[in-house]
Amino acid sequence: MALVVQKFGGTSVGDADRIRAVADHIARTRRSGCDVVVVVSAMGRTTDDLIRLADEVSSVQPPREYDMLVSSGERVSTALLCMALAELGVAASSFTGSQAGIVTDTDHMKAKIVDIRAGRITEALEAGKVPVVAGFQGVSTERDVTTLGRGASDLTAVALAAVLGAEVCEIYTDVTGVFSSDPRIVPDAHKLLRVSFEEMLEIAAAGGRVLQLRSGEFARNHHVPLHVRSSFTWEPGTWIVEEDDSMEQAVVTAVVHDVSQAKITVARVPDKPGIAARLFRALADRSVNVDDIVQNASVDGTTDISFTVPRTDLATAVEGVSGHLADLGATGVTSDVAIAKVSVIGAGMKSHPGVTATMFETLAEEGINIDLISTSTIRISCIVREEDVERAVRALHRAFDLA
Amino acid sequence: MALVVQKFGGTSVGDADRIRAVADHIARTRRSGCDVVVVVSAMGRTTDDLIRLADEVSSVQPPREYDMLVSSGERVSTALLCMALAELGVAASSFTGSQAGIVTDTDHMKAKIVDIRAGRITEALEAGKVPVVAGFQGVSTERDVTTLGRGASDLTAVALAAVLGAEVCEIYTDVTGVFSSDPRIVPDAHKLLRVSFEEMLEIAAAGGRVLQLRSGEFARNHHVPLHVRSSFTWEPGTWIVEEDDSMEQAVVTAVVHDVSQAKITVARVPDKPGIAARLFRALADRSVNVDDIVQNASVDGTTDISFTVPRTDLATAVEGVSGHLADLGATGVTSDVAIAKVSVIGAGMKSHPGVTATMFETLAEEGINIDLISTSTIRISCIVREEDVERAVRALHRAFDLA
Repeated sequence: MALVVQKFGGTSVGDADRIRAVADHIARTRRSGCDVVVVVSAMGRTTDDLIRLADEVSSVQPPREYDMLVSSGERVSTALLCMALAELGVAASSFTGSQAGIVTDTDHMKAKIVDIRAGRITEALEAGKVPVVAGFQGVSTERDVTTLGRGASDLTAVALAAVLGAEVCEIYTDVTGVFSSDPRIVPDAHKLLRVSFEEMLEIAAAGGRVLQLRSGEFARNHHVPLHVRSSFTWEPGTWIVEEDDSMEQAVVTAVVHDVSQAKITVARVPDKPGIAARLFRALADRSVNVDDIVQNASVDGTTDISFTVPRTDLATAVEGVSGHLADLGATGVTSDVAIAKVSVIGAGMKSHPGVTATMFETLAEEGINIDLISTSTIRISCIVREEDVERAVRALHRAFDLA
Repeated sequence: MALVVQKFGGTSVGDADRIRAVADHIARTRRSGCDVVVVVSAMGRTTDDLIRLADEVSSVQPPREYDMLVSSGERVSTALLCMALAELGVAASSFTGSQAGIVTDTDHMKAKIVDIRAGRITEALEAGKVPVVAGFQGVSTERDVTTLGRGASDLTAVALAAVLGAEVCEIYTDVTGVFSSDPRIVPDAHKLLRVSFEEMLEIAAAGGRVLQLRSGEFARNHHVPLHVRSSFTWEPGTWIVEEDDSMEQAVVTAVVHDVSQAKITVARVPDKPGIAARLFRALADRSVNVDDIVQNASVDGTTDISFTVPRTDLATAVEGVSGHLADLGATGVTSDVAIAKVSVIGAGMKSHPGVTATMFETLAEEGINIDLISTSTIRISCIVREEDVERAVRALHRAFDLA
């Protein structure tokens, strides 16, 4: 029998009515003749509430205890969903991450899965039951409760789909799929029926929020087809699949933007070996997540290095760089939060050289200045002023005929 | 080093401030030179909230899922308490019932402890840590999460104290100890410094709410001294210890009342063997918890049988009896909810025969009619009208010089 893994996020199980609606959908999937394994997140904002409570209690939060705390929300949603399924006559059993055999390393709050011993899940399936697994959590090799990082319920679902050989991993969320651009900014953005893993990963990295980047990578590496769809309308969503020659490759698939980054520029860095390494080691030591890095050709033996970091890391990053200015031989550091990134993404770009030119022309026509440029084989990103970004997205969506 | 088990109930850890206060007390106990194992309940009304949520979601609540749900509150309180301890520089580790090695049978919602494998607790103690254990829960021999029944966090504490050989199990609550009577009714009731297990069990069974009956029995059977005390004032409370000859035995220790019961009378039951057995089997089959039973000498070959049941079980009990009236050969069944039980309890009663007379005289002087009477070696209970019970309690407290 075909096996489907269905993952429901926090908004999908946000209250009693939503949980019953999800149970009803699972029951319908069963009746259609599929085996189903379910993965759920904590209800609504439960996890945020727990984190706030912890902040009220103590400024010292040992990671082991943090994981014990924030993993409790999924227990609640798995148990409630099993009760709702029982009312519909569907036999179901809840499993914590530990019971589901999600074995991780001991790196609390961002543990990596090292093994999946899905024996109890398989037994439940063989007994005709729907296993309902708590997302986002596992048990460490030291037998402690671990969590896999924010948003990692997707990862639990994808990993189980991979190990159980599921036909598809369905990621249910509060949007109907992946769009050619953010519909709140571009009213005629359309839902993509199918994108390649490569494109999806670039979309996620460029600021599209539909799928956790790490889960997308895991799905690609383990060949798990994903179907991102809505738990409110239940309509078919966007399939994320391996690229094959029969896929029609749009030159540009999506225009994505991101306003969560800030830019840092280190001025007049001596252009000699080892300087950049020293700079970014200082940032890595402070766990700052550096995104785009741009360094231009040197003039007079010095160069400027610019890079973007999440705005939440900006203070830490500037402080880290400032402490190393003398050491680096640089003259100063400046930062700018009022920036945004706009990216065009498309697997067909590889074989269509004109995309970069069209992008720059379009922005020029709109009078939008480009601050930094970075590219991959299927993505071109420009840093622009934050106040220009929505205009940039609309113009590019139009220019590449995505409506 | 002396080992103390400290158990904190829901009101003791009801909010962030309370959790910090509890952590502070644990830190002080550690500084006094004791090893400490902590057992906590869920915060405040968490468990009730979860049960309400389950009722919103589904009318079908498989016991296994119920246990997964309601055991989640203790994870939160254990983790938060460990964080509060960390801030005070006290190393602590949280343990779920499963991690603490509380192994139970598979009887969900009211599981019995079958084994305690406290290896991780002992390891934590040896590493100089304070183990903080989730009360009320365990793991079944089928590796499922179980709960031990409402109020059973006390049991977790007592069981761990027994297996770890603790010097004392301290039960922290929102009252300062066990009183000679309910202080809300008898303003000059005094706190008992020390009661025997036998007395405590009779007090609990007669309606005194301080300690869960089952935990008291476990403590007595395993010789675990208990100390019931307040987590709000931290003052010394009531010690519950084994009776020994050196203990001064008050004739009457406490006057306890209970308004949670209702009375059922089955009229004109044929006075022949097997009839009572048939009657109470019918009630047992409906899980009705029968308390006092009174049957009088027969007149004309028939007798009346009266008994009390919790008011919440009254409808089920009456229905159960009604269905068997013909079968029993009885003429009718009547019930009365407006009753109450008043009990006088004291270990010294065994050797002082006048207590019963004093009790009946006191009630007679107050013009209070006695409906049913039942006794044990250290307790005399009378069923009276509910509206008379507070007057009865005050009069008896005075008559036995308990002020």
